[in-house]
Amino acid sequence: MARYTVFVHVMPRRGVLDPPGEAARAALSALGFEEVREVRIGRRIAVEVEAADPSQAEARVRQMAERLLANPVIEEFELAAGGSPERANGSAGR
Amino acid sequence: MARYTVFVHVMPRRGVLDPPGEAARAALSALGFEEVREVRIGRRIAVEVEAADPSQAEARVRQMAERLLANPVIEEFELAAGGSPERANGSAGR
Repeated sequence: MARYTVFVHVMPRRGVLDPPGEAARAALSALGFEEVREVRIGRRIAVEVEAADPSQAEARVRQMAERLLANPVIEEFELAAGGSPERANGSAGR
Repeated sequence: MARYTVFVHVMPRRGVLDPPGEAARAALSALGFEEVREVRIGRRIAVEVEAADPSQAEARVRQMAERLLANPVIEEFELAAGGSPERANGSAGR
């Protein structure tokens, strides 16, 4: 077994109001960043799991996102692989 | 000019307490995902800007992150390129 980090990127669905994003856009504009057209703010969740291989880690994290980490009504998510795996118990090959 | 989307990934610095992340880890464990070792929750910010080219877009968004989008005391950030650019005013080549 090894430890894998899988990232879950959760963003508001297009068309859903995003008050924090709108506030950030307005603040950036006030700071002189006139070229900003839109800001959307979501979550980047780093999930570290023990798994036999990367695909098992990704499959399990997908289930976690579907069950808890993302609200399917107003959000959509995608997964992104993390860095290289760390041996779970420091021993090679097991 | 064209419109570019640049993503800013803002995460809590290692060692900084992350109550939402800890709460998510405990909830996932309670749901039967015993293999979860750690959950860290940050922000994924999609910034759409008008720029002459991708590197100018990235440079400006880096400044926005340093000035407003990330708190350097407790957070660190990295940039990630978005999708292909959209013509800002629909005309080719300008």
